Amino acid sequence: MKKLINHPDDVVRESLEGFANAHSSLVRVNLDPAYIVRSDAPIAGKVGIVSGGGSGHEPLHGGFVGAGMLDAACPGAIFTSPTPDQMLEAVKAVNGQAGALFIVKNYTGDIMNFEMAADLAREEGMSIESVVINDDVAVNDSLYTAGRRGVALTVLAEKITGAAAEQQRPLDAVAAICRQVNEQGRSMGMALTSCTVPHVGHPMFNLPEDEMEIGIGIHGEPGRRRVKLQSANVIAEMLMEPVLSDMNAKAGDDVLLFVNGMGGTPLTELYIIYRKANEIASKHGLKIIRSLVGSYVTSLEMAGCSITLLKMNDELATLWDAPVRTVALRWGI
Amino acid sequence: MKKLINHPDDVVRESLEGFANAHSSLVRVNLDPAYIVRSDAPIAGKVGIVSGGGSGHEPLHGGFVGAGMLDAACPGAIFTSPTPDQMLEAVKAVNGQAGALFIVKNYTGDIMNFEMAADLAREEGMSIESVVINDDVAVNDSLYTAGRRGVALTVLAEKITGAAAEQQRPLDAVAAICRQVNEQGRSMGMALTSCTVPHVGHPMFNLPEDEMEIGIGIHGEPGRRRVKLQSANVIAEMLMEPVLSDMNAKAGDDVLLFVNGMGGTPLTELYIIYRKANEIASKHGLKIIRSLVGSYVTSLEMAGCSITLLKMNDELATLWDAPVRTVALRWGI
Repeated sequence: MKKLINHPDDVVRESLEGFANAHSSLVRVNLDPAYIVRSDAPIAGKVGIVSGGGSGHEPLHGGFVGAGMLDAACPGAIFTSPTPDQMLEAVKAVNGQAGALFIVKNYTGDIMNFEMAADLAREEGMSIESVVINDDVAVNDSLYTAGRRGVALTVLAEKITGAAAEQQRPLDAVAAICRQVNEQGRSMGMALTSCTVPHVGHPMFNLPEDEMEIGIGIHGEPGRRRVKLQSANVIAEMLMEPVLSDMNAKAGDDVLLFVNGMGGTPLTELYIIYRKANEIASKHGLKIIRSLVGSYVTSLEMAGCSITLLKMNDELATLWDAPVRTVALRWGI
Repeated sequence: MKKLINHPDDVVRESLEGFANAHSSLVRVNLDPAYIVRSDAPIAGKVGIVSGGGSGHEPLHGGFVGAGMLDAACPGAIFTSPTPDQMLEAVKAVNGQAGALFIVKNYTGDIMNFEMAADLAREEGMSIESVVINDDVAVNDSLYTAGRRGVALTVLAEKITGAAAEQQRPLDAVAAICRQVNEQGRSMGMALTSCTVPHVGHPMFNLPEDEMEIGIGIHGEPGRRRVKLQSANVIAEMLMEPVLSDMNAKAGDDVLLFVNGMGGTPLTELYIIYRKANEIASKHGLKIIRSLVGSYVTSLEMAGCSITLLKMNDELATLWDAPVRTVALRWGI
């Protein structure tokens, strides 16, 4: 295992310490229990947006904490759900007396722990809503999930919902925007290589030199099928076809096209995928009004990518464009 | 070779096409000859900042084209210098009648071609200055370089120099700022793994599972030594010690600390390196007033990192903080 780490036990803590050192103007980091909050939290009268999940998907979620996006993020161990006490402490740290929204990727551990945290927070008098992100069209039910997995759409949901909360909209309106993003967005991913969890010390699965996994999950969960390696153009088609047919996109629809890297894939390659996805979407009559390309929801050093399409409208576009000031996504401020 | 590509011959062009599709609000892309310019170029009365180099280091340089940074970038083939005609067309496309500055990484091909382009542009009546970036303390003379290589400091030079140009400072003043950054900055890198150039089809070098290369170049050029794999803390020390001793940093100095990923290394690991580098710098009495962590000057999918220290002053800090609006670095606008 070749990694820039000290001991597997210390990866998440030491990485959080480095993150805190590097970005003290944007965020505050608490180590025990572990959570990251925007430096100006809590903000009176503002709904707190809280997310979290296993580490290993950076910059998700900690890189998206800041003005206009998340108020708090709770990092678990690598590929392991954070605990209810982390979530409870995080939501209390960002309590602006307007309630809080949990944005939860659909994994059984995350769902269970965020539900427990919501109960605990309600016992302390807070109003809590939760929205579950389940955008991955690859498979129904998976290694850690009942139903569809939550993957790269989470970034778009956090950005757009965060902008709505920044406008001091009430909790039910903020939650409604997040649900709308989830309903209107679909994703599918693929992997060229596996990744290695530090504690485990060897790759999660073996993928021969001439094969790839279509429909992979962000923890290396099996996808739809393992097939021979194909060209970027064919791969883009293999991902776009199920996304387009599932989301029932119609000619004339405005969309955001997001090509996400799994961690180990160079930007050059992501843009080659983007190029073909853009062409396919255009052939379907879709109008790509916003774009995002980069490694935002990763699986450690896995090579591969995912494609996300989000059906847009004027309100979502305005919220997407609103100023954001986080480590990994920033514009306007 | 596992890559998201179609044919090796088409990698750079198709990637540029995808980049153009995704970021048409920020940049315009010309394909033949290949260059990227900010969408509002040329800007009357503003010095044009032009850089470029082999592809494979993305987001460098194209990701740094935009307001407050580069006016134009010229991408060569993978790990291959762009040509003088590319550079000439690029500098003409951003000619605001105030001259232009070439920011050139110290590789023999880049130096030669940017010199020829400067001569051609001068023949057309333009004022051209060039600054060569040579921050890599690892080795003197290398596979493609006489003297020291130009590596990650290039990003800081492009940001700070771009901000000075945005203020409509004259060419000599803009060039002086760029030279100051180069004089005050030092870098050193290391690799855990090699990378594969698409045309070549196999890794550039072999690095056994228990070894790493200290002082690696961004094209996989040999470094100082190949040694047994060490912990992140030891690696940070191995990079910081030569950087610190070469730059003659004194207690009380303000610095910018930049931990750069080579492409295949997860953010989690870069923050573990940052954590230790921050600790070492602090022990030396340095005051880290600005930070950057991420994969900005990459070597395709190579795993590894580099550390850059830039001695700051009030002016450099103000220029660093100035608004920037590029694909890969953006704040304030």
